[in-house]
Amino acid sequence: MELVADPVDIGTRAPTVLLNEADAAELGVHALERVQLRRDGRTTIGIVELTDELVEPGTLGVTRRLGHIEGSVEVSVAPQPNSVYYIRKKLDGIELEADEIERIVRDIYEDRLADAELSAYVSASYTQGLSMEETMHLTECMANIGERMSWSEDIVADKHSIGGVAGNRVTPILVPIVAAAGLKIPKTSSRAVTSAAGTADTMEVLCDVDFSIDEIRDIVDETGGCLVWGGAVNLSPVDDRIIRVETPLSIDPRGQLIASVLSKKESAGSTHVVIDIPYGEGAKVASLADARELAEDFKRVGTHLGMSIECAITNGAAPVGRGVGPILEARDVLATLAGDGPNDLRVKSIRLAELLFECAGIDADATEILDSGQARETFREILAAQNGDPDVVASDLSPGRHTHTVRSDNNGVVTHINNRLVNEVARRAGAPKDAGAGIDLHCRVGETAAVGDALFTIHAESPDKLADSEDLVGRVDTVRVRHPDEALVDRI
Amino acid sequence: MELVADPVDIGTRAPTVLLNEADAAELGVHALERVQLRRDGRTTIGIVELTDELVEPGTLGVTRRLGHIEGSVEVSVAPQPNSVYYIRKKLDGIELEADEIERIVRDIYEDRLADAELSAYVSASYTQGLSMEETMHLTECMANIGERMSWSEDIVADKHSIGGVAGNRVTPILVPIVAAAGLKIPKTSSRAVTSAAGTADTMEVLCDVDFSIDEIRDIVDETGGCLVWGGAVNLSPVDDRIIRVETPLSIDPRGQLIASVLSKKESAGSTHVVIDIPYGEGAKVASLADARELAEDFKRVGTHLGMSIECAITNGAAPVGRGVGPILEARDVLATLAGDGPNDLRVKSIRLAELLFECAGIDADATEILDSGQARETFREILAAQNGDPDVVASDLSPGRHTHTVRSDNNGVVTHINNRLVNEVARRAGAPKDAGAGIDLHCRVGETAAVGDALFTIHAESPDKLADSEDLVGRVDTVRVRHPDEALVDRI
Repeated sequence: MELVADPVDIGTRAPTVLLNEADAAELGVHALERVQLRRDGRTTIGIVELTDELVEPGTLGVTRRLGHIEGSVEVSVAPQPNSVYYIRKKLDGIELEADEIERIVRDIYEDRLADAELSAYVSASYTQGLSMEETMHLTECMANIGERMSWSEDIVADKHSIGGVAGNRVTPILVPIVAAAGLKIPKTSSRAVTSAAGTADTMEVLCDVDFSIDEIRDIVDETGGCLVWGGAVNLSPVDDRIIRVETPLSIDPRGQLIASVLSKKESAGSTHVVIDIPYGEGAKVASLADARELAEDFKRVGTHLGMSIECAITNGAAPVGRGVGPILEARDVLATLAGDGPNDLRVKSIRLAELLFECAGIDADATEILDSGQARETFREILAAQNGDPDVVASDLSPGRHTHTVRSDNNGVVTHINNRLVNEVARRAGAPKDAGAGIDLHCRVGETAAVGDALFTIHAESPDKLADSEDLVGRVDTVRVRHPDEALVDRI
Repeated sequence: MELVADPVDIGTRAPTVLLNEADAAELGVHALERVQLRRDGRTTIGIVELTDELVEPGTLGVTRRLGHIEGSVEVSVAPQPNSVYYIRKKLDGIELEADEIERIVRDIYEDRLADAELSAYVSASYTQGLSMEETMHLTECMANIGERMSWSEDIVADKHSIGGVAGNRVTPILVPIVAAAGLKIPKTSSRAVTSAAGTADTMEVLCDVDFSIDEIRDIVDETGGCLVWGGAVNLSPVDDRIIRVETPLSIDPRGQLIASVLSKKESAGSTHVVIDIPYGEGAKVASLADARELAEDFKRVGTHLGMSIECAITNGAAPVGRGVGPILEARDVLATLAGDGPNDLRVKSIRLAELLFECAGIDADATEILDSGQARETFREILAAQNGDPDVVASDLSPGRHTHTVRSDNNGVVTHINNRLVNEVARRAGAPKDAGAGIDLHCRVGETAAVGDALFTIHAESPDKLADSEDLVGRVDTVRVRHPDEALVDRI
C-alpha cells in the first residue's frame, strides 16, 4: 500500500508509525505488528499503532525516530523474523550455528525484533549460556555491523572493565596516563548496564561524548586519547540495543559480555587491550576460579581476532572510589587527577596503566605520569578537545540536592559494602539518567563505625526517586557494620 | 505533579501516556519510563512517550487504553517494581517464595512490568522450570486476581486441551454433547498461544465470544453450556498478558501452562475437568512418559484446589481435523455436528466427552447424543444465545481468497504431518488474527500420494502474508511423502 509520510511529534524508543484504522484493516495489520517501509529501494521496519483521527487514511504518521522518512512510502506487512526461531532454539538449550547468530544480530540491527523477543534472546543467553564457538561468531557478527576505525600505528591501546563494581571510574584516569606516555588510546565507553554510571555517563558531566568517527580521529591525533560514547559512533550498534533490554533486569550473559566488549575493541581498531575483571562477593564474577575462566575466554576470543589481551583480576567485593553516580564519580576523577582523590581509585588506575604498558611493551612510569601532573594536563586537553571546560575542578560539581544520609545503627566495624545494593540504591535514586543522583560513601571496609556515624549519603534530583531509593535502603543491608567480635561470622 | 488528562486518539497495547517534554524534565522521567497516575485515591501505571506539540505543558495525553482517566491527575515517578528482582532470581535458577510469586502476578496485573521484563519472566520459567510448589502458588495467585463465577450445581464440567496440535477443534463439539447430556459446562477458552487458532478465535467466526459474567450465566442457564472467550470475563486477566508475550516466541513453560489452565477453571467454578494432553513428534509433549508426568502434575495441583481432574493422553503427532485456522476449523466443527466432518475429530470429541461423563459419574452416550442431532441442536441454541446465526452451515464460510496449493514431489506414502510447521505456516499466512487464513489439509498420515497430488492448500487474506507463508513452506518439510520402502527409515 502506498502511503504519504507525515511527521507526528511523538518521541519513542521504538520505530513507531501511526496508521489510520482503515488503512491498517486493508493492509491486515494490527497494533504492535511490524510493517516494512520501502522507499528508494531501501527498507526500514515500523511498529504499528492505530488512530482514527491523528492521521488521515492514505497517510503514514512517522514518529521522531523515523523522522528522516519523507514522501511516498510503500507499506507492507513485515515477515516474521526468522531469528525468532533461533531464539526459541536457544531457549531450548540448543547451540546456534554461525548463520543463525548472524541472523539474530542482523534482525536486532534492523529493528525487526520487539522488546519481548530481544529480552527472550538475552534471557536465553543468560540461562543457557553461549559456547566458545557461539561467542566467537557473535563477536565477529557484532563487529562486522556498523562502522570501523583504523589507525596507522602498530599499537593501539585500549582498556575495559566488565563492570559490576560501584564507582570504579578508572578509565578517565588511565586514558590520560596512557596517552601522556605516548600511546594512542581511542577509548569508547558504554553507558551503564548494571551499574549506576558508565564511563560515558560520567564523562558527559564534564564534556561532550557524542562524536563522529572523523571527530574522534581529530581528538586522538591532537591529544593521544579520547573518552567518548561508543554508541554514538555506531561501532557496535547492536550492543546498545541489547544493553537497553539488559539494563532493567541487571543481567549480562557471559558470552554476550565478551562479544560486547571485544566487538567494540575490534571495530575501534584496538590491538592491545587490558581488561579489568573484578571478582568477589557482590561483584559480577563471584569466585577467583570464575574470574580466571572468564579471563581465559577473553584471551581466546581475542587471539581469534588477532588482539593482545591482558586481564587484571581485581578485588570487586566493594566499591572503588567514593562517589557512585555520574556527577559523584566525575568529582572523584577530577580529585584523583589533581592528586587528591580516593586512594583505592588512584592505585587501581596506576596498576592497570602499568599492565597496559607491559602488554604493549612500553617502558613508562604510571605513578610518575600521574604525580607530575602530566596526566592531568592530558586530561585537560581531552576535555578541551571534547568541548568541555578544561579548568573544571571537583568543587564545581553539584550532586542532586535531595539527600538522605544513612547512619550506623551499632558500634563496630564495616565488614562489607554490597556493590549490587549500592548500585541498586543509586539507580533507584535516578542514576545514571539523572546525572546528580547516586551515593556518596563515607566509610570503607575495615573502618570502625559508631552509632550515628554517617555511612553514606543518597543524592537524588527528584524527591520521588529519593523516596523510592530510601524505601529500598530501609529493607536491605547495603553497608554491614558488625561488632568486632561478630565480624568474622555473619548472621544472614 | 498535577496534570489535566486529555484524550489522544492513539490505540496501543501499552498504557501509554504522552507528556510534554517540559513536564517530563521537571518530573525527571524519560521516554518509556513508568509513571504513577493517582486520582480519587486509585493508582494506575502509565508508560511515558514524549512530545513537544501534541500535548501542552500541564496536560497529560491519555491514549485509548487509559481513556477512562479524566480531569485532574497526580503524576509521579513510579517505583521500579520489586518483581524485577524476583524475575532476576528466577533467571538465576533459584526457587521463588509464595510472596515473590504473588508480587510478580500482581505487578503483571497492574501493568507495572514492561514487555521486556515480562518476557524475561516467561523465558526464566521456561528455561529454569517451575517447581510443584511454585506452580501451586502461581495457580492460586492467578485465580485470586480477577472475577470468579459460582454455580449452585454440585457438578460443573469443563474441558481443556494443552494445545500444540493443529486443528483439533474438539471443544465446540464436546460442549454441546455434554450440555445435551444435562451437565452444566460454562466453557471459557483462550485465544491461540502457539497454534493457528484457539477455540475463542474459531467460535468468533460463528458468534460473539465476548460476554460479561452475568451474560454467561444467562447463556449457560438457557442452554447448559457456552463457548466464550475467557479473557473477556477477566477470570484470569494475568494469563492473557502472559500469553501476549509467549505467542511470538511460541513458548509455554510447563508450570505456567498448568497455572494458566487451572486458575481459569478455578475462577470459572469448575469441579470436574477433563484435560487433553496430546503427545508425540511435533506435539508440545514429546514422549508418553512426559505426558504422564504432566498429567500427574495437573492432578496434584487440581487436588490441591479441590477439583476432580481426568487427563486424556492422546495422539498429538499429527493434526486432528482437516482445517487449521479460525474459519477453516469452524467449517470442520459445523460439518462434524451435522454428521459429516473429519472422522478423527468426531472420534476424539466423543471419547473426551465419555471421559468427562465418567469423571462426573454420569451415565450418558456421547455417540448417540451426536448422531441423533441432539448435540447439533444444543450448539444451535448456544450460537443463538451468543448472538450468532443458528442456521449457519459449513458451506456458508469462506476462507481467505489468496491461496497456494502444495503438491507432492514424489510417489509414496504420507509418513508425517508436522504439527509445529502446519501451525507456523498457518500463522505466517495470518492466522489467527486473519480469520480466513490457515491450511486446508488434503491428506492424512498413512495415505498414498502420487507426484502432483495436492497435499494441502494455504489460505490467506493478504497476498504479502501468503508470500511469507509460501517462503516458509519452500524451506521446510511440512508433509513428508516417502517411497513405501523408505517410510520406515527417514533421511533427515
